[in-house]
Amino acid sequence: MSPSNAKEQNQEIVLAKHPTGVPITDTFQMNDIDMPALRDNEVLIKTIYVSVDPGMRGFMDKGDDDVAGDKYALNKPITSRSVAQMIKSNGESFVIGDIQKGDTVVVSGAAGSVGSIASQIAKIKGCKVIGIAGSPKKIDYLEHELGLDKGTNYKQTDDMQTAIKEACPNGVDVFFDNVGGKLFDAVFANINRHGRITICGQIADYNTGSPPKGLRPMHTLIKNSARMEGFVVFDFSDEFDEAKKQIAEWYNEEKIIYKENLIQSFEKIPAVFIGLFIGENIGKQMVKTGNVNVS
Amino acid sequence: MSPSNAKEQNQEIVLAKHPTGVPITDTFQMNDIDMPALRDNEVLIKTIYVSVDPGMRGFMDKGDDDVAGDKYALNKPITSRSVAQMIKSNGESFVIGDIQKGDTVVVSGAAGSVGSIASQIAKIKGCKVIGIAGSPKKIDYLEHELGLDKGTNYKQTDDMQTAIKEACPNGVDVFFDNVGGKLFDAVFANINRHGRITICGQIADYNTGSPPKGLRPMHTLIKNSARMEGFVVFDFSDEFDEAKKQIAEWYNEEKIIYKENLIQSFEKIPAVFIGLFIGENIGKQMVKTGNVNVS
Repeated sequence: MSPSNAKEQNQEIVLAKHPTGVPITDTFQMNDIDMPALRDNEVLIKTIYVSVDPGMRGFMDKGDDDVAGDKYALNKPITSRSVAQMIKSNGESFVIGDIQKGDTVVVSGAAGSVGSIASQIAKIKGCKVIGIAGSPKKIDYLEHELGLDKGTNYKQTDDMQTAIKEACPNGVDVFFDNVGGKLFDAVFANINRHGRITICGQIADYNTGSPPKGLRPMHTLIKNSARMEGFVVFDFSDEFDEAKKQIAEWYNEEKIIYKENLIQSFEKIPAVFIGLFIGENIGKQMVKTGNVNVS
Repeated sequence: MSPSNAKEQNQEIVLAKHPTGVPITDTFQMNDIDMPALRDNEVLIKTIYVSVDPGMRGFMDKGDDDVAGDKYALNKPITSRSVAQMIKSNGESFVIGDIQKGDTVVVSGAAGSVGSIASQIAKIKGCKVIGIAGSPKKIDYLEHELGLDKGTNYKQTDDMQTAIKEACPNGVDVFFDNVGGKLFDAVFANINRHGRITICGQIADYNTGSPPKGLRPMHTLIKNSARMEGFVVFDFSDEFDEAKKQIAEWYNEEKIIYKENLIQSFEKIPAVFIGLFIGENIGKQMVKTGNVNVS
């Protein structure tokens, strides 16, 4: 692709302010910018889809340490995974470990992008799977589209611990947690001996200020000889190819379905990101920012 | 051994009240009781040593679930491990896992019964070992008798997190925690990526009321892909024989030293137990309740 001679226009969304708590509109600023001239060994790409993830919130805090790169800098573009013309970046893959046939598995944020795949893999592996979500529409999705054993709506009970106990009369063997907060406590109170807790995300706490406080899990870990482990997807980069192949195979065999929540237009990105924290999305949240050029 | 015909006298210590917070004298009641007549297939044993452990505190709470048996019932004798004439019950063995050569290992409660063995095994395995304790005498014991790389006195700093950072400039790979509370937080703040935290005991929280609250570790577990696991010694009962043999071998080779804090007389048991929570003991706390009869 050859660089254009006239200065073309582009847009960027920068981090205007480090958010305190839930990001607000002022967190972001949208700028019209000139397209830089293309240099040697560069390519021009047109962004078609942009991924909007709760995990991005963690990169918006002030600080110098993070999980996998630099924090977002003030007044610099906020980066995210995207699908673009010319260069393709495939979406996230991930690995779910330690799931055993016959186990009772609880997945929080089960209607979300990660949760819906984790739940379905647990079903494929022969587990009893209870998914937690926050709307009747999502519960219907979990029970009738993903085929989970039960969906539990945390907004329709004021005693989630008992709701989990009723859904899991034999206790919880594996808890794949995307949410944290009080939802974590309610499920964790039902954990079995030798239970395994995978800490994948803690969306409930991302906005509560740092560091989060609450019930301490150590006693229960001792009492139940239980294990709790965190991970970031990059830990398993060696297994991405294998995971993609396996998930694609399951997808083709219709053992896994996958939903994307696709919102049109670049301008909506901040609102869509804020929406993640109030449970608006089912499945992977994507924003379509343009159409593919047909040459 | 034949039963005695005359009613002999015996003593028992019963749980008089469920303690709130730190056990107090009123928690216990000592009774003079008649010795029951010996029935068929029973033996009479004379208790010589009684073990007094922080973990017993957990059995004193009201409730119906626990780690390895029933809670102590009100007005019933408090049971503990003992060495007695006629039947011998060996002391606890335990297994320490997941320790790797070159790792930096931090052990809290390092001058205690479990901590002193865990520390020394980590040294044998080629780790750099930092032990935490609460008196100059204990620090001297850690550094000059157990041969740890460093002892850190948590009572001599008001910034334990920085003290651990200075003792472990490359961070903490393995944290063997017997203490919990703020000490946990200070060490945990220094945990490395793929760090492993063994939750063995939480003596700092045993008396704070249930359930303990404080900083939540989940974010750090995600950020560092770290693992936290609890255990009770009975999980490893299949390996007790092997562990005893190995530890005895190290002991005979003088690679491990072992200290017991032996207090005389049955009446002292409540005071000794209370003393555990204010850090009085070095090594395993035992009470000698009688002399062996020489026939």
